[in-house]
Amino acid sequence: MASPLRVVSFGLGPIGLAAARLVLQKRSLQLVGAIDVDPAKVDHDVAELLQIEQPVGIRVEADAEAALRRLKPDVMLHCTSSFMGAVKDQLLLAARCGVDVVSSTEELLVPDLQSAPIAKEIDAAAVAGGVSILGTGVNPGYAMDFLAVIASAVTFDVKAVTCTRIVDAATRRLPLQRKVGAGLTKAEFQKEMATGKFGHIGMRESVALLARGIDIRLDRIEQTVEPVFAAEDHKTPFLTVKEGQVAGIRNHGYGYVGKHAIVHLDLSMYVGAPDPRDEVVLDSVPPIHLKFLGGIAGDQATAAILVNNLHGVVAAAPGLRTVLDVAPPRLCR
Amino acid sequence: MASPLRVVSFGLGPIGLAAARLVLQKRSLQLVGAIDVDPAKVDHDVAELLQIEQPVGIRVEADAEAALRRLKPDVMLHCTSSFMGAVKDQLLLAARCGVDVVSSTEELLVPDLQSAPIAKEIDAAAVAGGVSILGTGVNPGYAMDFLAVIASAVTFDVKAVTCTRIVDAATRRLPLQRKVGAGLTKAEFQKEMATGKFGHIGMRESVALLARGIDIRLDRIEQTVEPVFAAEDHKTPFLTVKEGQVAGIRNHGYGYVGKHAIVHLDLSMYVGAPDPRDEVVLDSVPPIHLKFLGGIAGDQATAAILVNNLHGVVAAAPGLRTVLDVAPPRLCR
Repeated sequence: MASPLRVVSFGLGPIGLAAARLVLQKRSLQLVGAIDVDPAKVDHDVAELLQIEQPVGIRVEADAEAALRRLKPDVMLHCTSSFMGAVKDQLLLAARCGVDVVSSTEELLVPDLQSAPIAKEIDAAAVAGGVSILGTGVNPGYAMDFLAVIASAVTFDVKAVTCTRIVDAATRRLPLQRKVGAGLTKAEFQKEMATGKFGHIGMRESVALLARGIDIRLDRIEQTVEPVFAAEDHKTPFLTVKEGQVAGIRNHGYGYVGKHAIVHLDLSMYVGAPDPRDEVVLDSVPPIHLKFLGGIAGDQATAAILVNNLHGVVAAAPGLRTVLDVAPPRLCR
Repeated sequence: MASPLRVVSFGLGPIGLAAARLVLQKRSLQLVGAIDVDPAKVDHDVAELLQIEQPVGIRVEADAEAALRRLKPDVMLHCTSSFMGAVKDQLLLAARCGVDVVSSTEELLVPDLQSAPIAKEIDAAAVAGGVSILGTGVNPGYAMDFLAVIASAVTFDVKAVTCTRIVDAATRRLPLQRKVGAGLTKAEFQKEMATGKFGHIGMRESVALLARGIDIRLDRIEQTVEPVFAAEDHKTPFLTVKEGQVAGIRNHGYGYVGKHAIVHLDLSMYVGAPDPRDEVVLDSVPPIHLKFLGGIAGDQATAAILVNNLHGVVAAAPGLRTVLDVAPPRLCR
């Protein structure tokens, strides 16, 4: 058997920790380092953060450059922020240190969509450093974009695409419940929405990735976000949503060619959402109707797809890549 | 826009013709030649074979080497046989001529499974010729193998896989209806089965691809094939199946680790099969249940996935590749 890939986890929030936990369980992967700037985490053994009894023997470090230069890992599992601007220096550092990257950064899914100059700089650094960098995840990255692209492979032609994702936010991590506004009043929700860092991040990226994947040139991408109010009280493991409070969001994304919305993504994430599922409907020849019964479990699945892409990224050609141009993602053990 | 890929179609049976027709409809592809050894087809304009009125201006040639050397296409769309032994010289020729290949050859999906020495020879020739060669299709290649692999990407672990494909053979081409025995007696069916060229080809390849995709080392692959008898008379566009005659097949494939069938593929292809569909169930964390409602339309979808892989194969690294190590398949226009 080949030696395990040596992995450093950068970013130890809920997704980063779930992914690090998974790395520890894989025989083809070896966790060799952990980076986070949060003083509450620095110097603690990863085992403490994962609430496992046996020490892992890896202490969280705050200095990413020192860690990468000392450890020389094969690949970095990167879960620090949703936004290109916030991760730019971290990714440039990885490129300089010759370390491949799988990142949960939502904007990195289609890096040139909102931050073309940053994407260009990261791509050049990745090529220069001989590393490949990939942004992926379940949404964006899989459920509402990649799956529809894969489904298009068995068609002659696609006229339009509709993807529907319904998530019961009660089953998700606390930060996600907070990000969809569970328990807020309408006024509080609107105030949060104005920050631009609230709600689901990555809808525009999903629309753009899907359109590129099926070779449609969009004229514009639009989205709408509205609160969904609780019809009754709901209690999650983390919080309580009272009747009339915000339970979460409904987020539509549209990709237009002229006046026609060729791509329509319909995302519901709220506490108590009934019949969770993922569906892809292609208006195509032949027609396609694909369904994940029960839906793709958000937090577990997100940690999984990041870890399951580590080998693929290491094998990929250098540069800033997308899920459309690396090998198909698949379980690693 | 980039220049269209210059495509030669080699093999003009029903699938090859459907694929060639599709190439003619794509702006990113240009049909530049057609090869078939059938004297009934040679020297005819492709338009005649496609039953379209306007001549295409491409005459079918019998001499593959002369055609490839004269036309210097970018890629060959190859639909001549299910078996490695039969296509070996055709693929070596393409490699010598520097032409990439997408092939419908079922055994080529996992080329080293049943013909490791031939696979090695083709791979070496492909590398030497700087070409990439890929076997793909809907089944094997997508419905009962690739989809399950893609689904595994959102899981922590997969303990077992079941894929179910139910095809109403009445909706398929005549050669497929013949290959599943529609209209035969039980005795005729058993005689045909003994030839080894009857029934669904590629079940072992699907089991093997799926197991590799989710990193399971199988101890052995087994399959069973049994006739399904018609409970009532059925008439297809091509033939009639009378009550009590064979309507088609049920084909199970199993991948074992020790005594346990970790992979179970369950394929029904018979005239009158109810509720056609494709399903993937992963016994996994989190669990996955994926369904294509109505199923993936066999003949159209097969032509589509071959054509939709042409760009991907041209972009792939040289060698004999599999669907696990080229970019994910997607619609081309």
